[in-house]
Amino acid sequence: MNKSHNSDTANGIQHDQDIDLTNSLRKWADSFGVTLESSEFAAQMDLADPLREVRSNFTFPTMKDLPCVDLSLIEKPDEECIYLCGNSLGLKPKRADAYQQEVLNCWAKLGVFTHFTGRFPAAKCDLLVKDSLVKLVGAENTDEVVCMNGLTVNIHLLLISFYRPTATRYKIMIEGHAFPSDRYAVVSQLNLHGYTEEDGLIILQTRPGEHILRTEDILASIEKHGEHVAVIFLSGVHYYTGQKFDIETITKSGQAKGCLVGWDLAHAVGNVELKIHDWNVDFACWCTYKYLNSGAGGIAGVFIHQKHHHDNRPKFCGWWSNREDTRFEMKHSVDAAAGADSYRLCNPPPALVALHIAGLEIFEEAGMDRLLTKQYLLTGYLEHLMDHLALSDAGEDKFVEIITPRDPRQRGTQLSVMFPFSVKDIHERLEKRGVVCDVRLPSVMRLAPTASYNTFTDVYRFFTVLKQVMIECKM
Amino acid sequence: MNKSHNSDTANGIQHDQDIDLTNSLRKWADSFGVTLESSEFAAQMDLADPLREVRSNFTFPTMKDLPCVDLSLIEKPDEECIYLCGNSLGLKPKRADAYQQEVLNCWAKLGVFTHFTGRFPAAKCDLLVKDSLVKLVGAENTDEVVCMNGLTVNIHLLLISFYRPTATRYKIMIEGHAFPSDRYAVVSQLNLHGYTEEDGLIILQTRPGEHILRTEDILASIEKHGEHVAVIFLSGVHYYTGQKFDIETITKSGQAKGCLVGWDLAHAVGNVELKIHDWNVDFACWCTYKYLNSGAGGIAGVFIHQKHHHDNRPKFCGWWSNREDTRFEMKHSVDAAAGADSYRLCNPPPALVALHIAGLEIFEEAGMDRLLTKQYLLTGYLEHLMDHLALSDAGEDKFVEIITPRDPRQRGTQLSVMFPFSVKDIHERLEKRGVVCDVRLPSVMRLAPTASYNTFTDVYRFFTVLKQVMIECKM
Ligand SMILES: Cc1ncc(COP(=O)(O)O)c(C=O)c1O
Ligand SMILES: Cc1ncc(COP(=O)(O)O)c(C=O)c1O
Repeated sequence: MNKSHNSDTANGIQHDQDIDLTNSLRKWADSFGVTLESSEFAAQMDLADPLREVRSNFTFPTMKDLPCVDLSLIEKPDEECIYLCGNSLGLKPKRADAYQQEVLNCWAKLGVFTHFTGRFPAAKCDLLVKDSLVKLVGAENTDEVVCMNGLTVNIHLLLISFYRPTATRYKIMIEGHAFPSDRYAVVSQLNLHGYTEEDGLIILQTRPGEHILRTEDILASIEKHGEHVAVIFLSGVHYYTGQKFDIETITKSGQAKGCLVGWDLAHAVGNVELKIHDWNVDFACWCTYKYLNSGAGGIAGVFIHQKHHHDNRPKFCGWWSNREDTRFEMKHSVDAAAGADSYRLCNPPPALVALHIAGLEIFEEAGMDRLLTKQYLLTGYLEHLMDHLALSDAGEDKFVEIITPRDPRQRGTQLSVMFPFSVKDIHERLEKRGVVCDVRLPSVMRLAPTASYNTFTDVYRFFTVLKQVMIECKM
Repeated sequence: MNKSHNSDTANGIQHDQDIDLTNSLRKWADSFGVTLESSEFAAQMDLADPLREVRSNFTFPTMKDLPCVDLSLIEKPDEECIYLCGNSLGLKPKRADAYQQEVLNCWAKLGVFTHFTGRFPAAKCDLLVKDSLVKLVGAENTDEVVCMNGLTVNIHLLLISFYRPTATRYKIMIEGHAFPSDRYAVVSQLNLHGYTEEDGLIILQTRPGEHILRTEDILASIEKHGEHVAVIFLSGVHYYTGQKFDIETITKSGQAKGCLVGWDLAHAVGNVELKIHDWNVDFACWCTYKYLNSGAGGIAGVFIHQKHHHDNRPKFCGWWSNREDTRFEMKHSVDAAAGADSYRLCNPPPALVALHIAGLEIFEEAGMDRLLTKQYLLTGYLEHLMDHLALSDAGEDKFVEIITPRDPRQRGTQLSVMFPFSVKDIHERLEKRGVVCDVRLPSVMRLAPTASYNTFTDVYRFFTVLKQVMIECKM
């Protein structure tokens, strides 16, 4: 699998290359001598998967342990569930337990000396993730990235610095279906500076009947409103639709109009290829409990482009904004740490950093390139089976509607789907059969076959369960 | 011990009562038939201590495990160290390991269902500490308190709401020796609103040659500057001197001048009696890794007085500011949670909440009243031994100078001391002998015999080591 896609780069695909995923999946099927829709195909793909061992780094919930499973509908209660929910909460890396115990042991054994001793020295542990973060987001160097706080806290800390409204340029551009936390954050920042939501927001809307924001429409809106926009703040991959935005193009066009352009990479990091330094992104932030598997409420991340490291914008400060080596001189003024580190406020929690590291190490070991190649095939396979389900079912091709872009260059792992039946009802039926995925109001189900732990067989199992559920629903 | 101090209330003492601590300690000594300066006294006090079993809830570092210990100077390398550093990082509650493992197990077993299931359901776990926090800070009800983020982050979130400068009232009053993080936070808030440190800060200074801020001087400064002061932000117990501020009186006098009055309770919570609702405190915040034993970088706490729950001040928002029951309706505007909960931004980390709970439960079990009574005696005992050391040593009563107030009503557990020799040198010598305490620049050593895990024998052992070190230093 690795070899035959050696030439694939960004997200497993070159932009100028044939991207007929079904075609390349079918070639695999032919080489195995099976049909693409057979269970054997999935089994063969798993065998050929160079990352097949990565799954063993994670603990999978079993069927019988899930609160929603109806055991009378399950053949093997001890079997691993069909977990397609990495978009919400990634699975637990097995090593997390040992790392967490190490944090506890160090505290127990050393008391306050745990601040500077051991594998996760409390006062420096946040620095340990920098190299990994540089690679995951495509930063230029470790000064551009930092882990701290939670995502929404970081959105605020970034906007305090980067949203500097003036009389003529005070608006913030977001999209109409932004994640609520981002919208609430942005609106409260507008309010802080005396602007109302109505006046201060420029909201990107999809065209009537469409789910996906077209890049051309975003660029047109920037062209139209840009001179009044202080900050453009969008998500790298959309939580609801799974759409991946063209970060480079949008950033460039926003900056050409004098806007600062920041990105919420919650659903992008660990999921799609990012080169945010090269793309000249001004600032970015992300959470780590989705594709990076750091656990609920995990410590979040921030990127500040190098060009802003010395531009003296207002910034919230704390003692952790200070350089490490002079911090305990306890001066009256901050002796600022380099780059993104100066955005830190508090001493970091080693318990959360250790969990973050447990997840990141698996990415280091697997290699993001290989994960991207696998993700491309895995999502393409899910897409094909969903299409097959729709077509095979009496030719109703709207049976299952995938609203995520069909072009793999415009998405990551997640497919968002709609059904002609109640999505809540379908979701409940799937859950009873051991499928874990989620629903976002008003009407999509999110399916994220995650390259680090999902198999082609997981996707195939999901497909057979869904087929069954759909038949039930039609009855 | 309990009985004979039954009438003691606030911090173990009634304000109108005889507070000659040495006298009451001496009565204990007489009743044991030993001298107050003998090791037997400490042993007897430990036997009489109704909280003597509480210590067994904590893991004590042993002599041999500490990085600074010189084993050639230690008789029993397996003995517990002399830990007087609860002011910096409290010791690990033994149960923390099991709770942390429960968080990990739940994540492993349930995946995303860990959000709503199990002992520490990720999406609600932060609510579990509210009852304890109400008691510890003296809130009126659970709506007034919340745990979230780190302390300095919370200082900023509070000041965004409560620091609303106007042309004539834009100053912030802090004290000259405020903890750096607090000062950096306050100054960056001033800057955000366009004020400079020079113009915007009103700094309370001690009188020449004094270490302790006199309440009368604070009140005089409020009287003088109050009409221009938007916010008074002080610490409940001072990190450097150990002084406990008269929160009630200062709050009242600030409010009489039209100021809002907020408190950083980092060194006060779990250490001194707090009734911040009754004292009419506008807002407060604290960290939990000191006396509350939640571990480095532990989740922090916030108090918002009920009177501010509906005053519509600007506030940073996130999806966690929203009511729990409507959060996933993902509306465009925040449907605000009650009171302090509306200051939350992010989904909480169960790993940190579980550690917080491990510490809080011990407080619940021991009872804050009993802890305060013990603290009063323990600190008084340390004070007496330090005085004794000074006097016994050739009558030089400045041998060890305690800068913390001598009046136990004006302090908590911490004594801050100065020496006629290099404090760094003394500190190193103490550390070599298994004493854990810290030094804060420029010149104090902080000693915190912590009621939840320290014994009278710990204090006595410290005294004998210090005596030895002082003799060495004089040589
Ligand atoms: C009074 C005071 N304020 C602020 C802080 C900083 O706390 P954090 O790093 O948790 O934000 C401390 C830490 O010791 C403190 O004692
Ligand atoms: C796009 C986006 N923004 C913000 C958040 C909120 O994150 P947090 O609770 O970590 O602040 C999420 C959480 O899923 C998200 O997906």
